[in-house]
Amino acid sequence: MAVAAPEDANGSMVVPFHGPDQAGLTVRPQAWSTFLALDLLAETDADGLRRLMRLLSDDASRLTSGEPALADSEPELATRPARLTVTFGFGPAFVARAGGEVPAWLGPLPAFAVDRLEEAWSHGDLLLEIASDDPTTLAHATRMLLKDTRSFATVRWVQRGFRRAHGSMANGTTMRNLFGQVDGTVNPGPASADFDGLVRIRDGGWLTGGTSLVVRRTAMDLEGWDRLDRPGREASVGRRLDTGAPLTGGGEHTEPDFEARDAVGFPVIAEFSHVRRARSDDPRERFYRRGYNYDDTPAPGQISNSGLIFACFQADPLTQFVPVQQRLSDLDLLNEWTTPIGSAVFAIPPGCDEGGFVGQTLLID
Amino acid sequence: MAVAAPEDANGSMVVPFHGPDQAGLTVRPQAWSTFLALDLLAETDADGLRRLMRLLSDDASRLTSGEPALADSEPELATRPARLTVTFGFGPAFVARAGGEVPAWLGPLPAFAVDRLEEAWSHGDLLLEIASDDPTTLAHATRMLLKDTRSFATVRWVQRGFRRAHGSMANGTTMRNLFGQVDGTVNPGPASADFDGLVRIRDGGWLTGGTSLVVRRTAMDLEGWDRLDRPGREASVGRRLDTGAPLTGGGEHTEPDFEARDAVGFPVIAEFSHVRRARSDDPRERFYRRGYNYDDTPAPGQISNSGLIFACFQADPLTQFVPVQQRLSDLDLLNEWTTPIGSAVFAIPPGCDEGGFVGQTLLID
Ligand code: HEM
Ligand code: HEM
Repeated sequence: MAVAAPEDANGSMVVPFHGPDQAGLTVRPQAWSTFLALDLLAETDADGLRRLMRLLSDDASRLTSGEPALADSEPELATRPARLTVTFGFGPAFVARAGGEVPAWLGPLPAFAVDRLEEAWSHGDLLLEIASDDPTTLAHATRMLLKDTRSFATVRWVQRGFRRAHGSMANGTTMRNLFGQVDGTVNPGPASADFDGLVRIRDGGWLTGGTSLVVRRTAMDLEGWDRLDRPGREASVGRRLDTGAPLTGGGEHTEPDFEARDAVGFPVIAEFSHVRRARSDDPRERFYRRGYNYDDTPAPGQISNSGLIFACFQADPLTQFVPVQQRLSDLDLLNEWTTPIGSAVFAIPPGCDEGGFVGQTLLID
Repeated sequence: MAVAAPEDANGSMVVPFHGPDQAGLTVRPQAWSTFLALDLLAETDADGLRRLMRLLSDDASRLTSGEPALADSEPELATRPARLTVTFGFGPAFVARAGGEVPAWLGPLPAFAVDRLEEAWSHGDLLLEIASDDPTTLAHATRMLLKDTRSFATVRWVQRGFRRAHGSMANGTTMRNLFGQVDGTVNPGPASADFDGLVRIRDGGWLTGGTSLVVRRTAMDLEGWDRLDRPGREASVGRRLDTGAPLTGGGEHTEPDFEARDAVGFPVIAEFSHVRRARSDDPRERFYRRGYNYDDTPAPGQISNSGLIFACFQADPLTQFVPVQQRLSDLDLLNEWTTPIGSAVFAIPPGCDEGGFVGQTLLID
């Protein structure tokens, strides 16, 4: 018998703010995520950073539990957390100003030939990733947290992304991006045995137990993609569009057979396909992808302005992410329809316990 | 006993496209709505409009039922309609080019003193309101429909709005806007006995059975609002922030007592409060409000760019909407924090049956 959905199915769901990890690293991705980068004001010193992170952590812990922020101007908008999480990341200037050791990888990535980076979508001193299944909650939490930052920093960029709404797909279904592709199949996420080794930083001083986040805003040429036929699209990635299964058969989670040849001797999964190029022989060259689709207002004369907020977590971007991005930049059939237009790297400190604040390992020594 | 939400609680929900009304008029508002205005190309004649509306209606009927569009480039993104609806509206140039009679009210509204209208958010020849509980579905449907329009029109403006997510509030809860106010309490919606008389056009030639839509993009100064204390905010509207009840007592749906005085003889609900000024003695001066919150990227140095896509349906904007907007423009405490920055009026034709298309009463005579 069909059971009607409870009327308030997800509004009251709470993801705890406190714990060893920042919640945004491990929570099942919410429907909406806002990535927001700030530039610190010149006068914000280590003391200011400490005050700022205390304030932000305190309000984030309230808001994520469905309570108003400390000086909440619209407390009624805070009551439906809908799995709200707030995750903080630090750029190199933040760490330097805090007087901490700046990891070698914390800074702009090397330039890639495919890049068409815009400053306006790149870099930043402080990242807030705010995510929820409810858009009103997300708007409210974003504003309350930005108010906390007002005397310390200014907004550099805001990227708003989405997946499926809560409840519009069975849990555990891999997301699709706006090319229609199943995106996220081979991905060492929190449930994977490799997660800890690939994602968590060991012996990293103040960052021990934390991780790093690469955010690459990647425009997707949907109009160009539409001109390509289905076999061409599937060949460019090496997977089927309907099920996400590899072109060598099976289901979404079947291993691709890169050795398989067709009747005339060509590889069934092209050498230059995205999945072939993205997979390294070195098992360290992997990371946890956790991106969001974006769909913004088209420029005059255009009918779409869409893409992927490509986001991935790894212990070390230089040794894990960069070699893969380099291979893809060198050669990847998908490049014809995808263009990185923004790039940023952040250190993601570990979580904090009640009474503590995110960044305390950096700001209190 | 608590019942877990079914995993796919709302993705498969379908709102029928065909029927006497366009679905967007009567459906319980979805979480997300995109209002999209197009300008017709110079060469689009009545014949072209007929082809365009056939194409759009056909694809809208497919997409809303969870089927791919006719030439769908990403059919896999079409499978979760999540109550998708598509509603069409015509501006004066559309009707004139179709050779139809342009209603006296179909054109720019009279100028109001409060207006700070931007062309970029105003007017338009053809409106698409596309709404769904799922953002991926919304993005996909929007693009498929815009592809249909490509040889006929260009995009003039896009306004993206939201309410609560499906399932994050009990059904039937009145929405809150980003001021935190309960917004939509006194509102002759589809369930009201007054709806037909106020909203549907009678003896309107090709528009008989249809209605009109006023879209007023209204910026809300959240920062200024925050500087006001709670009593000041409640006085400006005449209702409580927590429950939405009138300041004269009771619950959200209790009638306000505009005669009640406080101990020193002042009206409990201020003369210049929004609800006092918005209510007319003439029962014809009413309309069905059906707006959406917006929250866009802040301008440099700002922390919010938010407001209301104020949208309302009525049989005649000039006799129903304009007198109320005029009273509010003349005097309304809320004006200090709200600014209309866009304005457009559209004729909303009736719905169509299977095999027909929206606008057929105008385009086939
Ligand atoms: C808009 C840009 C991109 C699109 C549309 C895209 C799409 C896809 C798709 C459809 C798959 C196959 C399904 C899966 O396993 O998730 C995939 C796999 C993958 N992608 Fe991407 N991708 C993009 C950018 C990137 C970037 C920038 C990187 C890293 C530099 C990357 C790394 C990977 C990896 C590591 C895999 C798994 C490969 C394997 O099977 O081992 N992708 N991507
Ligand atoms: C951002 C701008 C606006 C905000 C924040 C706002 C907010 C509100 C609120 C909180 C209420 C009380 C609850 C309710 O009955 O819904 C209300 C009522 C109302 N508003 Fe507005 N409003 C805005 C603009 C407008 C405009 C432009 C009009 C029409 C010209 C309008 C017409 C009305 C009407 C007719 C009522 C019901 C009054 C009654 O009780 O009879 N509002 N509005």
